[in-house]
Amino acid sequence: MNTSTEMLSALLGDKADAALIISNSNRRYFTGFVSSLGYLLVTRKQAYLFVDFRYAEAAEKQADGCEVICYKDLESDLSEILVNENIKSVLLEGSAFTLNDAQKIDGILSKNNAQSIHSDELDKLVSKLRIVKTSEEIEKIIHAQRITERALSETLPLIKEGVMEKDIALELEYKMRKLGADGVSFDLIVIAGEKTSMPHGVPGDNRIKPGDFITFDIGALYEGYHSDMTRTYAYGCVNDKQKRVYYTVLQAQKLALEAIGAGVKCADVDRAARDYIYHAGYEGYFGHSTGHGVGLDIHEQPFVSSKSETVLQSGMVITAEPGIYLPGEFGVRIEDMAVVTSDGCINLATITKELIVL
Amino acid sequence: MNTSTEMLSALLGDKADAALIISNSNRRYFTGFVSSLGYLLVTRKQAYLFVDFRYAEAAEKQADGCEVICYKDLESDLSEILVNENIKSVLLEGSAFTLNDAQKIDGILSKNNAQSIHSDELDKLVSKLRIVKTSEEIEKIIHAQRITERALSETLPLIKEGVMEKDIALELEYKMRKLGADGVSFDLIVIAGEKTSMPHGVPGDNRIKPGDFITFDIGALYEGYHSDMTRTYAYGCVNDKQKRVYYTVLQAQKLALEAIGAGVKCADVDRAARDYIYHAGYEGYFGHSTGHGVGLDIHEQPFVSSKSETVLQSGMVITAEPGIYLPGEFGVRIEDMAVVTSDGCINLATITKELIVL
Repeated sequence: MNTSTEMLSALLGDKADAALIISNSNRRYFTGFVSSLGYLLVTRKQAYLFVDFRYAEAAEKQADGCEVICYKDLESDLSEILVNENIKSVLLEGSAFTLNDAQKIDGILSKNNAQSIHSDELDKLVSKLRIVKTSEEIEKIIHAQRITERALSETLPLIKEGVMEKDIALELEYKMRKLGADGVSFDLIVIAGEKTSMPHGVPGDNRIKPGDFITFDIGALYEGYHSDMTRTYAYGCVNDKQKRVYYTVLQAQKLALEAIGAGVKCADVDRAARDYIYHAGYEGYFGHSTGHGVGLDIHEQPFVSSKSETVLQSGMVITAEPGIYLPGEFGVRIEDMAVVTSDGCINLATITKELIVL
Repeated sequence: MNTSTEMLSALLGDKADAALIISNSNRRYFTGFVSSLGYLLVTRKQAYLFVDFRYAEAAEKQADGCEVICYKDLESDLSEILVNENIKSVLLEGSAFTLNDAQKIDGILSKNNAQSIHSDELDKLVSKLRIVKTSEEIEKIIHAQRITERALSETLPLIKEGVMEKDIALELEYKMRKLGADGVSFDLIVIAGEKTSMPHGVPGDNRIKPGDFITFDIGALYEGYHSDMTRTYAYGCVNDKQKRVYYTVLQAQKLALEAIGAGVKCADVDRAARDYIYHAGYEGYFGHSTGHGVGLDIHEQPFVSSKSETVLQSGMVITAEPGIYLPGEFGVRIEDMAVVTSDGCINLATITKELIVL
C-alpha cells in the first residue's frame, strides 16, 4: 500500500472490512493511475486495482501501492480476495456507485456471504484525506492557475465591441490547451452586460458593448487538478453604481481572504464577506456561498458556507468568491484560490483585482 | 403530458405508480429542457419537473408537457404529489441515481408510506422509447455530423510532418465549435503511427511522420445530440501490409452496412463484419463490437455486438465501425453512422472512405 491507501485502510476501523471505490477522481487519488473504468478495493491488508484488458499494461506500470488485477470475470477475481481475506462487509462509495453498479457488486458479495454498506460513510472518510493537499497537489493546482492567468492575459486584447461571449470563451479555452492544460476545469463562464447578474450564465451570442461588465469565471485542468478564478472587467466605460458594487465586492473578498487561517471555521470566512455586503445595502443580492474546496474535483470539501462548521487546516485549498447580482442590471464576482496556512493563507492568484476598464 | 411522457406513463403498467428521472439526458429527452440538476416525476396522470430557483424561469418557458415545480424544500413539494396522487411505488433510474441520491429520495418516500424500486427496469423502459429516433432527432444528429465533416476537411491541410497529435485534435475541436457545435461528442481521438493499434488511444505529443496511419475518431455535439465517425488516413506513403489491412477493414465495414435493415438482429450485423475480418486472417485483432446506437448519449442502445439479440427497427441510428489492430505496428478503423430503414439504411457520413495518402 502507499500512504493514502494505508490511511484509508486505518480509517476503516470497525466500520467495515474493506472499501470499494469506483469514481475516477478517487481511483486516481489513491493510485495515481488515470482511467475511466475500474474498481479499487482497499482492505485491512492490501489495496487491489481491478481494471479490464484495455488498462492492464498501463496500470501495471503506473498504479502506485496496489496490486493490479486484470479481470476477465470480475466475479471470480473479486470473490477470490473476499474469501482469502475473509471480508464480510464492504463500504461502497455512495456518491459514485449508481444503483445498477451497486446491484452488480451486491450480487457478488452475497454469493460470498459478504454484504455492502450503502451510505455516505466512505465519502466522508475519503474526504477527510483529500481535504488537505500535499505539496505535489498544490503544485499542480498552481500550475493550472498559471495557465489560466496567462491565457486570460492573452485573450483580453481580443475583446472589442461586438465580439460574442462564446467566441471569447472559445479563444480562452484554446489558449489554455495550447499552454498545456489538459482541458478546462468547467465550462468557462464569459458573460457580459445584463447577463452578469446570473451567477452561472452560459456564454452565448450576446455581443460586448460599451458600459458592460464582463465576468470571467474560468479555470484550467492540469494533471487532474483544477483551478478556479473569477475576474469582472468593465468595457469602454463604467458608471458610479457599477464602481460602488465593484468595490463593495472587492472589499468583501479581501475580508474573506483575511479571515482565512488554520483553526478558523468556514462559516466565519463566509460571514466576513457576507456581513460586509449586507451592511453595504446588498442583502438579498448575494445568494451563493463564499467559497469551496478545489482539487481533483472543482467543487469539493470544505464548503465555505454560512452553515459550515468545518474548521480550516493548513494545506486546504479554497476559493473566496463573493458577488453582488442586481437582476436586470449587472453583477460582479471576484474570486481567488488560496492555500490555508497556520497564520493566514497564500493567495494563488497573481493578477490584479483593481477595476480595469478594457 | 407530451407524447414521450405519455408513453412512459403508459409503460409503467403494474410495475409502479410513478417513475423518477434524474439524468440530464433523460430529463432533456422527456421535457426538451436543458439543466444540470432536477427531477422529473412521471405518474399515471401527470409529469412534474422539479427544479431549483436557478432554473425556474427558464423551465417555465421551455419545458414541454410537464408541470414545473420550483422547490425550496424537495421533501414537502414531492410529498404533496405523492399524497395527492396516492403514489405508493416509484421506479428510480438505476443507471443514474447514486446510492446517496437514492437514500435522500427513499427517506422522503418512506415518510409518505411509499417505496422506491431500485433496478434497471426504468432504464429499460426509457431505452425502449429512445432507441427509435424521431425525424427531429435525426436532423440534429445529421447537423452534428455535417459539422464534424466540415471541421475535418478544414483540418486535414494542417497535417504536416512533425505536427503533434494533440495539436491536430485541438484544431479540430476549435473548428467544430466555430462551426456551431456545442462541444465535442467525446474527447476526440487523433492518434498516429504505432498508437493506432490502440482502439482508444489518447492524443499526445507524438508527432506525425511519413508512413504513419492517422486515425481520427471524432464527433460533434449539437443541441444535445452526438455524431460519431472514424477515418484512417496514411501520411506520406503506405506499404502493402497497411493497404491489405485497410481494404480488409473497409470491406468488412461495407458488409456491416449492407447487413443493416429493419428486422435484422444486431448480432448478424456484427457477424457480417467479424466473419470477413476473421476469414482474412485477422482473428484476435478485432477486439471490440461492430457498433452502437447514437443519440443523446454517444453510446446507447442498441449495441451491435456478437451477442446482441436486439432486432433493428426503422429510425434507429447506429454506427458500423470494425477495426483491425496489430500491436506494435498499426491499426485501422473505419466508422459511419447510419439510420436504419425498412429495407436497409441511410449512411449519414458523406466523406470518402477510400485510402487517402495525405
